[in-house]
Amino acid sequence: MFTLYFAPHTCSLASHIALEDAGAAYVLKRIDFGKAEQQKPNYLTINPKARVPAMVTSRGILTETPAILAFIAQSFPDARLAPLDDPFAFAELQAFNSYLCSTLHVAHAHRMRGYRWADDPAAIAAMQRKVPESVGACFDLIERHMFKGPWVMGDAYTTADPYLFTLAQWLEADGVDPTRISRVVDHRQRMLERPAVKKAIAEELAGLRSV
Amino acid sequence: MFTLYFAPHTCSLASHIALEDAGAAYVLKRIDFGKAEQQKPNYLTINPKARVPAMVTSRGILTETPAILAFIAQSFPDARLAPLDDPFAFAELQAFNSYLCSTLHVAHAHRMRGYRWADDPAAIAAMQRKVPESVGACFDLIERHMFKGPWVMGDAYTTADPYLFTLAQWLEADGVDPTRISRVVDHRQRMLERPAVKKAIAEELAGLRSV
Repeated sequence: MFTLYFAPHTCSLASHIALEDAGAAYVLKRIDFGKAEQQKPNYLTINPKARVPAMVTSRGILTETPAILAFIAQSFPDARLAPLDDPFAFAELQAFNSYLCSTLHVAHAHRMRGYRWADDPAAIAAMQRKVPESVGACFDLIERHMFKGPWVMGDAYTTADPYLFTLAQWLEADGVDPTRISRVVDHRQRMLERPAVKKAIAEELAGLRSV
Repeated sequence: MFTLYFAPHTCSLASHIALEDAGAAYVLKRIDFGKAEQQKPNYLTINPKARVPAMVTSRGILTETPAILAFIAQSFPDARLAPLDDPFAFAELQAFNSYLCSTLHVAHAHRMRGYRWADDPAAIAAMQRKVPESVGACFDLIERHMFKGPWVMGDAYTTADPYLFTLAQWLEADGVDPTRISRVVDHRQRMLERPAVKKAIAEELAGLRSV
């Protein structure tokens, strides 16, 4: 049994979907960013980085989406969420997920979390202005060079699929024209039709209503 | 036989050291950032992200430090560079490396590569001013919460060690007071005494002289 600490509309959705894909037993705990719960002592004992996701396991707590996704895939090999017996193919998958966390998600974060990297309001506004370009360049690279199709890594669905789907939720708000990245947008639509994705999204929104 | 595309004084040193640690056969190819070689068509066919490292293998090209490090560890299991038979411990290692690429390295990059996230020179200067604080906060977290000792992940040396060592090269230039992160600095010194680290650094500097 895992406990996934999540916040709606954040990258924790990727791990949530992967838990569903794996058929894992898990419970959800919502962290309310509106109340800055991620900064409060109770949560900092779970994750001193003050971020989501964090996943409690019987062995300890894991953070960082690429690591959590790989752990889920390795813990549920029958779900075939990663090419576990092929180090090169596994590394290609990890490289894709690493790009999402270190480059695409970072570019996106400059729209709403520029305070991480500058104090001056004018500088934060300047970062926001560049987000359509910087996030757009990431999606262009994915569209043209990285996305293999029909799934991210090719014929097999992997953990890269819920992760890309999750970050692709935000592209219109980031000012990226979806018509120029038709493969990414088509993938997003196909992901939305998967029962695991529908269930994960519904659970996160239900959590919003109940709080 | 691998080919590692590197640039001196960048994060590619981590993969270079790991190749040495693994006893892998490899050749180095230097990308001259001073000549913007990473942006030129020849290199973009290797890595369309225009970054280092990129590692050519018999199966294809890998990018992203955490993925390359895991691939080296899995390809040379006798070198014991990762807890390959323990998915939880492996995930903890991947989480550490993921934090380095997505948070610490990103904070550092705002000192010299702010143009990625803003166009306004005043905004870029504002980012530079915050680097001591943002990079310092990352190192504080590593020092207090993440570094297990004597090696990053505890008793066993892993791929997290060359990666932390590599990024710790830059902390003084980033304006971080080394006296407040004594475990990180002690680790950096112990790493410098390892033959694999000495050899990797010497090879990169020799490359500088020969070009």
